[in-house]
Amino acid sequence: MNIYEDLCLLIGKEKTSVNETVLVNHSKDESNHQSVEPDVVVFPESTEDVQKILKYANTHKVPVVPYGAGSGLEGQSIPVQKGISVDFEKMNKILEVRPEDLAVIVQPGITRVQLNEELKKYGLFFPVDPGADASIGGMAATNASGTMTVRYGGMRSQVLNLRVVLADGRVIETGSLAKKSSSGLHLNGLFVGSEGTLGIFTEIALKLHGIPEDIVAARCSFPSVSSCVEAATAILAAGVPVARIELVDARTIQQTNEYSGTDYPAAPSLFFEFHGNRGGNQEDIEFVQAIVEEAGCLEFLSETNSLKRAALWKARHEVNFAYRHGNPRLDSITTDVCVPISKLAENVEFASRKLNEYGLKGGVVGHVGDGNFHSMILYDPNVKGEYEKVLQLTDEMVELALQSGGTCTGEHGVGLGKIGYQRKEHKEALDVMLSLKRTLDPNNIMNPGKIFPGEG
Amino acid sequence: MNIYEDLCLLIGKEKTSVNETVLVNHSKDESNHQSVEPDVVVFPESTEDVQKILKYANTHKVPVVPYGAGSGLEGQSIPVQKGISVDFEKMNKILEVRPEDLAVIVQPGITRVQLNEELKKYGLFFPVDPGADASIGGMAATNASGTMTVRYGGMRSQVLNLRVVLADGRVIETGSLAKKSSSGLHLNGLFVGSEGTLGIFTEIALKLHGIPEDIVAARCSFPSVSSCVEAATAILAAGVPVARIELVDARTIQQTNEYSGTDYPAAPSLFFEFHGNRGGNQEDIEFVQAIVEEAGCLEFLSETNSLKRAALWKARHEVNFAYRHGNPRLDSITTDVCVPISKLAENVEFASRKLNEYGLKGGVVGHVGDGNFHSMILYDPNVKGEYEKVLQLTDEMVELALQSGGTCTGEHGVGLGKIGYQRKEHKEALDVMLSLKRTLDPNNIMNPGKIFPGEG
Repeated sequence: MNIYEDLCLLIGKEKTSVNETVLVNHSKDESNHQSVEPDVVVFPESTEDVQKILKYANTHKVPVVPYGAGSGLEGQSIPVQKGISVDFEKMNKILEVRPEDLAVIVQPGITRVQLNEELKKYGLFFPVDPGADASIGGMAATNASGTMTVRYGGMRSQVLNLRVVLADGRVIETGSLAKKSSSGLHLNGLFVGSEGTLGIFTEIALKLHGIPEDIVAARCSFPSVSSCVEAATAILAAGVPVARIELVDARTIQQTNEYSGTDYPAAPSLFFEFHGNRGGNQEDIEFVQAIVEEAGCLEFLSETNSLKRAALWKARHEVNFAYRHGNPRLDSITTDVCVPISKLAENVEFASRKLNEYGLKGGVVGHVGDGNFHSMILYDPNVKGEYEKVLQLTDEMVELALQSGGTCTGEHGVGLGKIGYQRKEHKEALDVMLSLKRTLDPNNIMNPGKIFPGEG
Repeated sequence: MNIYEDLCLLIGKEKTSVNETVLVNHSKDESNHQSVEPDVVVFPESTEDVQKILKYANTHKVPVVPYGAGSGLEGQSIPVQKGISVDFEKMNKILEVRPEDLAVIVQPGITRVQLNEELKKYGLFFPVDPGADASIGGMAATNASGTMTVRYGGMRSQVLNLRVVLADGRVIETGSLAKKSSSGLHLNGLFVGSEGTLGIFTEIALKLHGIPEDIVAARCSFPSVSSCVEAATAILAAGVPVARIELVDARTIQQTNEYSGTDYPAAPSLFFEFHGNRGGNQEDIEFVQAIVEEAGCLEFLSETNSLKRAALWKARHEVNFAYRHGNPRLDSITTDVCVPISKLAENVEFASRKLNEYGLKGGVVGHVGDGNFHSMILYDPNVKGEYEKVLQLTDEMVELALQSGGTCTGEHGVGLGKIGYQRKEHKEALDVMLSLKRTLDPNNIMNPGKIFPGEG
């Protein structure tokens, strides 16, 4: 069997590649997981192409791994068992904007920035904003979310319908264009976040939102992380519909001050954004200011002008750059636990304390409204034992998150990096997940080696 | 085998009944579907009780049907193949309110009104509001929603975690207390809306929301249904975060005028509610008034005072009563299609026109922000052929909804009434649903005869 020649015949030579550079490009993502080259990379142009690829792969038991923008953080698109990497760069179109329905139908290869660029002219936007300019297909496969999830929800709540090609080549639609449904079993939610292990998406219908009339940004610093979290909790419980509420710890503020030339107070800070009308935002800002002052806020700034808003948020936006480019010789790992908000302060403080104890550089930023935070941990790959310390630390952080009733991953997904926590987090439910996986993919060709421990 | 005696031994006589009145009470719901008495009714007090019941039922292949408040509209809790009806009236407690986490953990038997009564003292509320005072377990099993779903989402988006007993007695947790997760496969969404066909819920963790500081209600009437829908679409596309936006057609306004003694203009009307702060609501109201006037609004009224708000909304709240009690000798059926909003006017007008053509009494109310509407159709069970006309009409309405890219049921569920549309709506996806069902319930004991056509 020659997979390359077979696929050339099936879908065309121009959509099939074994070029060494192409193979290398599809061997990795943004994570530190070991790269593995696929046997072949294909560039389908239609659902029918994907059907042909999967029928072939299923017959010959060849692994298939979907590939979007390569911006994953947990190795989801690394073809650990080789086989076929399915790249969606040619399936990157908007198929239909439906402004009246506040909906859009896209192909999986389009990125979120490309999509929003196009939506602007309709006065609409798509609110799921992970750090990278990820592909919508990858975002759906990972159940991605971001800074606006506290207000608008993550991918799972924004996906109306998926056209999915199953392992055996069957094509299904998991939802409809109706905004809600109580019909059948809900397959949308199951396939969103399934990381290519159940099927491959070829069309995605998404909910859209009207661009708000008025946007206000605010920032305030606090004496401690726990006072940040206390303020955030009070704001949410009061029903203030904040569009963004982000926590940045003192270490991270310091890092961005050094890298970006800002002069923010080096204290734990909350960054806010409010979406609404002018009067409503004004009252929300005043109300929030009263709450944060009660929680011991040291300084409160707000801005409506779009340039000044960007300046106010600069430190938050540049966190990743500041850590990476401020420490060019160090590697980094980003954790992603998500916990009930009542446990957030404890979890963040644990991460900070442990970073100190282990003598590691790094800090914490958090989507505090969702209880999700990232600890950026820097390490020197050339110092013996340092990477092991990082793994030990991330292990302890996940352990505490699970004890707190939380999850090992709020938005980055399982991929390779979180497989080891699946049994501990899901217990007997993992067996149910596995039985569903085996029902839909009996030959285990769909992104084998991901999500499910001990499979393949 | 004597199921009653076996269950008495297993869980206790005091939790087991074959009393004739009890059996009759568990033979039906609020629908017109044929009643069927179960063999036995059980009243479990714990997850362990439910495990014992299911292990027994699975071993002896006895059907098991969960029963909440009996307020279902599609026959979901009717034990069509007899067996065991599992009533949750003894499992109706709030287990834990977590105000900081904006979350609550409840047993399935508690009703939404009981829950909200208790939450008031925390300044919190649970926003899913179907017409009836349904049990939370039943609402989760049906993926119920209501008038506030346009703003807060339906059950699926509000359930954080379910403790589920599977057919074989295994207990799993489908989620966690984290507000979002990308770990494992998402079982929450699959079990919500599964109508007892995959497992039985014994604990439910829900998201909560802060009671808004300011609430404003408004009502306006229009020359046509399509101008109502046009106005609603413009309001949503502008990103106005309306908490409720309900359509009531002219026939229904007339019916409530007759029954409730109101004197609303007998024209298609929109009913609004705004949740926010005072300044924000004020601007939203002004903005909405400008939009509805552009769409040809005949009259616009708004109120902030809570008694006056109730008076303003009276007609909407009393729709069901008005139809039922205004026509005591007639039976009624309520349809539940949900369509993309761009198709809503066409679908509602079709329903109105057909009601006229068939000479049937009735009207339309709609959760217009979600594209979901109910046609209340009245008929005389003693007039030969009238019920058949109703079925013909509902069939035509579902047909048009599916052609429009919508669903046969937005919130009432499949049960018995929508089984006939499952293949047409879900096509090949129905086979996937069936294969998941068979994987989790190989003996088909879990509410057999529901959702899946041709099963059992």
